[in-house]
Amino acid sequence: MSCAFVAVDWGTTSLRAYAVAADGRVLARTASAHGIQSRQGDFEATLAQALEALPGSGTAPVLMAGMIGSQQGWVEAPYVETPCSADVLARRLTDVPTVSLARPVKIVPGVAHLARGVPDVMRGEETQLLGLIQLDGLQAGSHVVCMPGTHCKWVRLHDGVIVEFSTYMTGELFKLLSEQSILGRLMVRNGDADVDDWAGFDAGIDRVQRESGHLMHQLFAVRTEGLFKRRPATALKSYLSGLLIGHELQAALQDVPASAPVVLVGDDRLTARYQRGLERRGVAVRHAPQDIVVAGLASIARAAGWC
Amino acid sequence: MSCAFVAVDWGTTSLRAYAVAADGRVLARTASAHGIQSRQGDFEATLAQALEALPGSGTAPVLMAGMIGSQQGWVEAPYVETPCSADVLARRLTDVPTVSLARPVKIVPGVAHLARGVPDVMRGEETQLLGLIQLDGLQAGSHVVCMPGTHCKWVRLHDGVIVEFSTYMTGELFKLLSEQSILGRLMVRNGDADVDDWAGFDAGIDRVQRESGHLMHQLFAVRTEGLFKRRPATALKSYLSGLLIGHELQAALQDVPASAPVVLVGDDRLTARYQRGLERRGVAVRHAPQDIVVAGLASIARAAGWC
Repeated sequence: MSCAFVAVDWGTTSLRAYAVAADGRVLARTASAHGIQSRQGDFEATLAQALEALPGSGTAPVLMAGMIGSQQGWVEAPYVETPCSADVLARRLTDVPTVSLARPVKIVPGVAHLARGVPDVMRGEETQLLGLIQLDGLQAGSHVVCMPGTHCKWVRLHDGVIVEFSTYMTGELFKLLSEQSILGRLMVRNGDADVDDWAGFDAGIDRVQRESGHLMHQLFAVRTEGLFKRRPATALKSYLSGLLIGHELQAALQDVPASAPVVLVGDDRLTARYQRGLERRGVAVRHAPQDIVVAGLASIARAAGWC
Repeated sequence: MSCAFVAVDWGTTSLRAYAVAADGRVLARTASAHGIQSRQGDFEATLAQALEALPGSGTAPVLMAGMIGSQQGWVEAPYVETPCSADVLARRLTDVPTVSLARPVKIVPGVAHLARGVPDVMRGEETQLLGLIQLDGLQAGSHVVCMPGTHCKWVRLHDGVIVEFSTYMTGELFKLLSEQSILGRLMVRNGDADVDDWAGFDAGIDRVQRESGHLMHQLFAVRTEGLFKRRPATALKSYLSGLLIGHELQAALQDVPASAPVVLVGDDRLTARYQRGLERRGVAVRHAPQDIVVAGLASIARAAGWC
């Protein structure tokens, strides 16, 4: 089977490229740490190097998603607004002129959502979401997707369309507060691998559910409970995580109530925390498989008539 | 008039000492940048140097407040619990043994407040509050005090007693988010002095009042509104400040409803923001004078029978 197109997931710190057949099967893959902020040489040379690692791809067109289409990327791919489907994205691909690649190269746009006049944005996640929509049971009806990371996205899909979403800065706040604030000073690593302390995490989740207190006040307890030795120093980081994720869950579930299981997309360690927090609140979860970004790019390529 | 005692306000980054007469009048003062984290030599030598700058103080006893009584200070002065008055604090002073000072040296304890089993703490603010209580109109009845800073304290006083308080990490979050998060990247200084952009600040305050959105979600708009050029880059820092202070006001006013004007204690630039935010919410304010910490130490010294 021959390569129909090359799928490229090009983020801030990594680049992944896949030779994809017309039926969506991955024929070959390559990956590097040459993200848009860590590439060697210009964008075209970096992409050419990745294509060389996919010799079967011939002159198949290239479809890229992620931060490569941001203001800091190769060519800016303007945002499209919600509601947004594969068809909409396929009609709004941004052409990337190249000197030597001798094949079409295009970038998937990011998506913007306006709520009460205030914009929210995603770039890269829209393509993962279109991959997710290919999965059993997610094509029709309404589904809530939670995509933990530095900036966690909560998304509502309806009949295969991205309808609305909100970003929560939970991951970035966790990193800043645990590494650079007064809260980090009493924290002690939990074993060599600094594993999660689930009792501490649960205490944070439960406190948010039990009390009406505000995040900026409750956070201070990470210090005082450490100071008064009410919680072991090895549990404080997980307690902070529980408080932050607890507040996020509280707000997000109010904003987009989940009737079906919440679909979790992200790395194992992080989604395990969200799963635990959601289940403690009585909300079931479902995990997404890896490589949904390739399925998403394939569905956009199909909508664009490439395969 | 002779010196009855020496009042010392000894914090993390500065030391201020005052020779105080029996009627509370300040006879002489000295100040240095020799806070507990920036002192030169040991604590006793640093204090001896300050006392030399107050030659009229003779062998009058020394009463100290602030971080000098913390775990990182000279001698730890254990917390006393709310409700707390000058009498309570005067009975729980911590003695500091010295080699060469030839006069009593004591430290005012910090105060702990337990709300739903979770401790909150202050150290230094309790002494300011006792100074505040000396002011006209604040001796009797119920009063809400807001003390902005790295960790803002909201306090309820009743008939001259510290009844309850909550800490909000607003100042520390503002510093971390504006200087070290993705939100800071689009911010541009507002003139050489980086003055407050009041339109941006008001937009943050108003958004919190208008919407039910969660802080961790609303924060992301500092980025997107900059990205979409809905707000000038010079207004983004003040917008962030408005969102953070807006959330703090929302939570704190719910927690400790203010019937009389809220009393603001802190530096001019910071209290101006809180005043503006409170007045936009229809809450009147009253500003505290400088040097209330000396009045607080004097009231504890009186309660201890020193003058």
